[in-house]
Amino acid sequence: MQRREIELTTGDQRITDVTAECATFVAEVGGDGLLHVFLPHATAGLALLETGAGSDTDLADHLDTLLPRDDRWRHRHGSPGHGADHVLPGLISPSLSVPVDDGRMALGTWQSVVVVDTNADNPRRTLRLSFLAG
Amino acid sequence: MQRREIELTTGDQRITDVTAECATFVAEVGGDGLLHVFLPHATAGLALLETGAGSDTDLADHLDTLLPRDDRWRHRHGSPGHGADHVLPGLISPSLSVPVDDGRMALGTWQSVVVVDTNADNPRRTLRLSFLAG
Amino acid sequence: MQRREIELTTGDQRITDVTAECATFVAEVGGDGLLHVFLPHATAGLALLETGAGSDTDLADHLDTLLPRDDRWRHRHGSPGHGADHVLPGLISPSLSVPVDDGRMALGTWQSVVVVDTNADNPRRTLRLSFLAG
Repeated sequence: MQRREIELTTGDQRITDVTAECATFVAEVGGDGLLHVFLPHATAGLALLETGAGSDTDLADHLDTLLPRDDRWRHRHGSPGHGADHVLPGLISPSLSVPVDDGRMALGTWQSVVVVDTNADNPRRTLRLSFLAG
Repeated sequence: MQRREIELTTGDQRITDVTAECATFVAEVGGDGLLHVFLPHATAGLALLETGAGSDTDLADHLDTLLPRDDRWRHRHGSPGHGADHVLPGLISPSLSVPVDDGRMALGTWQSVVVVDTNADNPRRTLRLSFLAG
Repeated sequence: MQRREIELTTGDQRITDVTAECATFVAEVGGDGLLHVFLPHATAGLALLETGAGSDTDLADHLDTLLPRDDRWRHRHGSPGHGADHVLPGLISPSLSVPVDDGRMALGTWQSVVVVDTNADNPRRTLRLSFLAG
């Protein structure tokens, strides 16, 4: 299995587009198969979204409604409301697969691969890419 | 890797059962492995649900509560509330895998593969199936 | 494809940690590849979460806010509010993949594989593990 780990600096950026990193990896590996994208972190997730037209910010903002950053959470380490970050991967999984044809992801025109990370306390992230030839 | 693209007409139907299409594909390919189901679209997702007892409609209706079709969204192209459709794949991923044993999906009795698509502006959808032999 | 089915007794436990079962399976199979975890059930999902610091209970409790156990649901078999259990897999998918390096899951320090199951009416569950060598 071909694999690569990429270090990201997300800082307080809640959505980070990693489509280019994924595309480079599958192009270098080449062939048909499945790209598996994975985050080895407990406070971030992966999504396929349109970026650049506001929907990435819409998702990030709306997470404050779905998972309010208040004192309801048992998990209370870190910044106020940080417990919400630990529930996030239950709704937005850190595991995602994308089909690959001849070294290219079979994404739709408006799809980008993004890291969703509302946890500013952990600004360094590792993106793990794996390719299963098919 | 065996693959197939299937054109769907979802119209204003919010849940479309594609279990039969998936079952036909894996039966024709045969063998053991993993079926990967994928939507190359930025306003739809895939789910494994019981259909026929109201839960499909329950999910579709409840999305109006989780992702209200009001003017909160930055993304404002298309019909009113359409920004919600663009956030949907963040919660309901367009990427899904199902194990296959000897040409049959290992689904539970009550599981169906469904497309969740609240976006009536785009009535034509492509379903991408890939099979990784294992 | 190597596979294993494991019977679980979840009872009224809403979060069940199955990391040890997954780790044992991939260690016995060995090698590099992708572990696919699957629940053949229509009222449960899988997540990668930190356990032991409250976030598992936070997720389970918060599902009562996201998917209220009231009479809004069309699906009305079973206990009151059971319709919510049938919508749950739309938000928390019963299908999950984890990369495996030399017989070990490439999980982050704080990640555990958990079954999320708010349906106390069905205390017996089957966990299906599949390994695709890569």
